[in-house]
Amino acid sequence: MAFGWIDEQALLRRRAGLVRTLRPRPADSPLLDLASNDYLGLARHPEVTEGAARAARTWGGGSTGSRLVTGTTELHSQLELELAEYCGFEAALVFSSGYAANLAAVTALAPHGSLIVSDAGNHASLIDGCRLARGTTQVVGHADPEAVRKALQTHEGPAVVVSDTVFSVDGDAAPLAGLAEACREHGAGLLVDDAHGLGVLGDGGRGAPHAAGLAGADDVVVTVTLSKSLGSQGGAVLGPARVIDHLVNAARTFIFDTGLAPAAAGAALAALHLLRREPARAARAREVAAELHARLTAAGHEAVRPDAAVVSVRAPSPEQAVRWAADCRTAGLAVGCFRPPSVPDGISRLRLTARADLSEAQIERAVCVIGETRP
Amino acid sequence: MAFGWIDEQALLRRRAGLVRTLRPRPADSPLLDLASNDYLGLARHPEVTEGAARAARTWGGGSTGSRLVTGTTELHSQLELELAEYCGFEAALVFSSGYAANLAAVTALAPHGSLIVSDAGNHASLIDGCRLARGTTQVVGHADPEAVRKALQTHEGPAVVVSDTVFSVDGDAAPLAGLAEACREHGAGLLVDDAHGLGVLGDGGRGAPHAAGLAGADDVVVTVTLSKSLGSQGGAVLGPARVIDHLVNAARTFIFDTGLAPAAAGAALAALHLLRREPARAARAREVAAELHARLTAAGHEAVRPDAAVVSVRAPSPEQAVRWAADCRTAGLAVGCFRPPSVPDGISRLRLTARADLSEAQIERAVCVIGETRP
Ligand SMILES: Cc1ncc(COP(=O)(O)O)c(C=O)c1O
Ligand SMILES: Cc1ncc(COP(=O)(O)O)c(C=O)c1O
Repeated sequence: MAFGWIDEQALLRRRAGLVRTLRPRPADSPLLDLASNDYLGLARHPEVTEGAARAARTWGGGSTGSRLVTGTTELHSQLELELAEYCGFEAALVFSSGYAANLAAVTALAPHGSLIVSDAGNHASLIDGCRLARGTTQVVGHADPEAVRKALQTHEGPAVVVSDTVFSVDGDAAPLAGLAEACREHGAGLLVDDAHGLGVLGDGGRGAPHAAGLAGADDVVVTVTLSKSLGSQGGAVLGPARVIDHLVNAARTFIFDTGLAPAAAGAALAALHLLRREPARAARAREVAAELHARLTAAGHEAVRPDAAVVSVRAPSPEQAVRWAADCRTAGLAVGCFRPPSVPDGISRLRLTARADLSEAQIERAVCVIGETRP
Repeated sequence: MAFGWIDEQALLRRRAGLVRTLRPRPADSPLLDLASNDYLGLARHPEVTEGAARAARTWGGGSTGSRLVTGTTELHSQLELELAEYCGFEAALVFSSGYAANLAAVTALAPHGSLIVSDAGNHASLIDGCRLARGTTQVVGHADPEAVRKALQTHEGPAVVVSDTVFSVDGDAAPLAGLAEACREHGAGLLVDDAHGLGVLGDGGRGAPHAAGLAGADDVVVTVTLSKSLGSQGGAVLGPARVIDHLVNAARTFIFDTGLAPAAAGAALAALHLLRREPARAARAREVAAELHARLTAAGHEAVRPDAAVVSVRAPSPEQAVRWAADCRTAGLAVGCFRPPSVPDGISRLRLTARADLSEAQIERAVCVIGETRP
């Protein structure tokens, strides 16, 4: 029977206790949220939701076509202009998702005959970009500029080094300065995904590349998502204008995809304006992360020191991680849970996001629940 | 220099007259739109834009996380339920774009050792899905069930046949009944992309699979987009519940992507409600297409008989196609323009979309402008 093999896979998943199920949430969930990526707590900020509503009314429910036909509105251009300017880049290009932005950037910057050097901890969307690209991919050890240097030495011709700036599972930062140095020694380009850096790292949340002094460099390209700190949906590529022009002409997930919905562009733009006006939100997210880490460590948990707004806490086993997260939920706290096969290193953990709008009482409560439910 | 090869490619593109540029449109464009994919004219319908606005206010600017963490709201579930029900399928799964839905469906349904039989005219997102999938792809001639049959005969093990239902360039329909028959002879699954069928074909716009009597079949999976007839953004996969469960567990563009923004889900849901209440909109889009085709043919243009709401008109050369589209624009009419390398057959054409809300006077004016600007 067609698709018969699906039932066998489902059975194996059930036996291994690895079945994933969707849990629709209500609009007024009573859970304390330390699971989302809404780092600045902007997704439900009235200015952001009004930005979405206004854009839908002014521009329509959808952008109606691909960006090169009818899908570019003046709102898209304004968002691109302001994003580029805020983060310190010459130009920006907006996509329907961060995933699409990563597919576009990797495939367009790694032509036939080129080398892609990819960190072993990179996000799925960067990995899929490597798989789709015409160039050859060499995966190197996590956060290891020396390994990158060695990989680049083996290759003649165009090369690009690809890395998350903040890794989504453990919340650790990439060694951007070291990566840039290795790239420059070999004339390679540097492409970094700042999905978890934008809004959190750098002056006013301008991102990890800005903090590392790499913003606006002619050999650096950055992808961001509008779906985390900016509380919306969509993605963008930031870089030299010539690179952005190249993407417009060559990136399939740009050319053959409908433009981002106006409401998402409007929400992201409103969030960007908020961040410009209240730049302390970024520092506050980092503060909350540091505080969460300090308190959890003091309580005897094994937590990774956070470089951004993600705090990762080790669990003794996959089963216990799942149980721990479920017990937190029962106690009113939503936390993320990572376990194999989603984590390449085999280490199961809880993943906590340190939202800038968490109060002291909420931080206290979160630490309390995590302690009480500890396996 | 890093990215130096980009300048060479840009030079080649300039020399060949193939540079693509973005043209941001204002909210109140004076152009008559026959270029967008807003087939039912719903993108700016007040119920649709209010659906977006209300959803943003109620649920936030973004969904705040991946669908498996915090990104599934009750609104997403409702949209999935109603989409599946309207189109006649057991279950549905919503994605951030139609592109992402296609990547998910193809990769998840073509495991290692399987065969993908892919129509030569398929959309870029299906092609990228084939490239990402673990299975082996065999490309077959356009709309040719006999070629599909032959390809399937060469293979033992799981197989899936992949096709657009309506091809986006020429607007011609796939031979769905013939494809389904070939699949069933060989126990293969059928995966069709109804991006240009939903809202236009079938009773009340239930889509091409519904019209072909394939809705709800246990060997048929359908992808749709929310960005064309439904005037929003996003995509969905429709099919048997076991297939949808499999996608939840296995599809990378589902698991590692932020959930669709609430505003986009709300807009699509409002459009679906409108379509249910006013099912004649679908037939009207087909009528407009037939009328456009008849009038253009009567005026001596070479136009493909439309199977849905896309009317394709041949142009004598790539240069003249570009010039023709530009002259239409100057005369107040927006039309699409396809030319190599976007068209695999090398034939340049204008692409007109027959919106259900075009008036007789607008159709008249469009035909007039196309005639007057003819190269
Ligand atoms: C590091 C990283 N890059 C890219 C993405 C994809 O962005 P989006 O969800 O906006 O498509 C994500 C998360 O979803 C991510 O964590
Ligand atoms: C046939 C087809 N499939 C899929 C897509 C992708 O859908 P979306 O633009 O919603 O990502 C498109 C157009 O954009 C299309 O024409």
